[in-house]
Amino acid sequence: MTNSDEPAHKTDAAAPKDPADVETPTPGLEFGVSAINRRWKRDELLKKGSLFARGFAFFLSLLSFIITASNKHGDWKNFDNYEEYRYLLAIAILSTFYSGVQASRHVNALWNAKQMLDQRISAMVDFAGDQVVAYLLMSSVSAAIPLTNRMREGQDNVFTDSSAWSISMSFFAFLLLAISALISGYKLSTQSYI
Amino acid sequence: MTNSDEPAHKTDAAAPKDPADVETPTPGLEFGVSAINRRWKRDELLKKGSLFARGFAFFLSLLSFIITASNKHGDWKNFDNYEEYRYLLAIAILSTFYSGVQASRHVNALWNAKQMLDQRISAMVDFAGDQVVAYLLMSSVSAAIPLTNRMREGQDNVFTDSSAWSISMSFFAFLLLAISALISGYKLSTQSYI
Repeated sequence: MTNSDEPAHKTDAAAPKDPADVETPTPGLEFGVSAINRRWKRDELLKKGSLFARGFAFFLSLLSFIITASNKHGDWKNFDNYEEYRYLLAIAILSTFYSGVQASRHVNALWNAKQMLDQRISAMVDFAGDQVVAYLLMSSVSAAIPLTNRMREGQDNVFTDSSAWSISMSFFAFLLLAISALISGYKLSTQSYI
Repeated sequence: MTNSDEPAHKTDAAAPKDPADVETPTPGLEFGVSAINRRWKRDELLKKGSLFARGFAFFLSLLSFIITASNKHGDWKNFDNYEEYRYLLAIAILSTFYSGVQASRHVNALWNAKQMLDQRISAMVDFAGDQVVAYLLMSSVSAAIPLTNRMREGQDNVFTDSSAWSISMSFFAFLLLAISALISGYKLSTQSYI
């Protein structure tokens, strides 16, 4: 054993730390890392997508709610004379409330990264809620359309126009919540594999 | 080295083949096998469940279709005077056709164990179809209810009763297809992990 041996060993041990070696790990590891990265990116995209869908659904339901509720022009032109419009209003309020709470809950989860509910339960609540509110919106829109249609055969006025606007807003809110239900169904099903 | 050593070695090598040892494999393997078994049983159950749901949905849509189509009692009591009932009939026919084709396709797959479509595409078609037909049924039921309600405030007769029956049948068909959409959504999402 000479003194010159020790420095030689040290440089050998230090060799793998040179940048070119460090940046090429084993191919298996690289594949795994890139797969996880892809998964993360997709999850992030879905999270933002469902937040966007819920936020926009909130906005549209709120519009539908306001338009229906202010649709009073005296005599027969009051929305509360017709059970279809009362139903439309009720579901618009429900949908506003639901998507507002959901959007704020998800914004909260995005900023604070802490969950109010267990993740699995939260995904189930999301999915069931989106699906049920989507069905209800579809139902309220379908109930209000024939009445509005029949009224507009007679005449077009500010009352029937407002109803038509409100129905359209509810319909787009339905589309957004249906998409959101798809996303949360996907999340729910991949949950147990994480 | 004696001659008596060899027989001793042979019995040693034969020892692990005694039945008690063979029937207890490593715990890891046993766990894996039971998990796969569980998975198979669950898939089998889901397959039968969705077949049952579709078959029953077919039956109910057919009933709804027949009841609506035969709901003609002269004068104002003809279903085809009202766009709501025409819509109900159209969707009942669509749903009868869809769930009939789906049920027969799945019965075929169950007996012959061969698929007409690629499995992944088939799962997507199932999910999209179930979801869309469920939304349409919900829509047709919601459109027909207010009209029937209003007629029944005036009088109850065979026309309004038949309409109510037909609406109920369509509603139960909707419930079954909504369940079926859940099952096929689950199947779709677990597909890539098999």
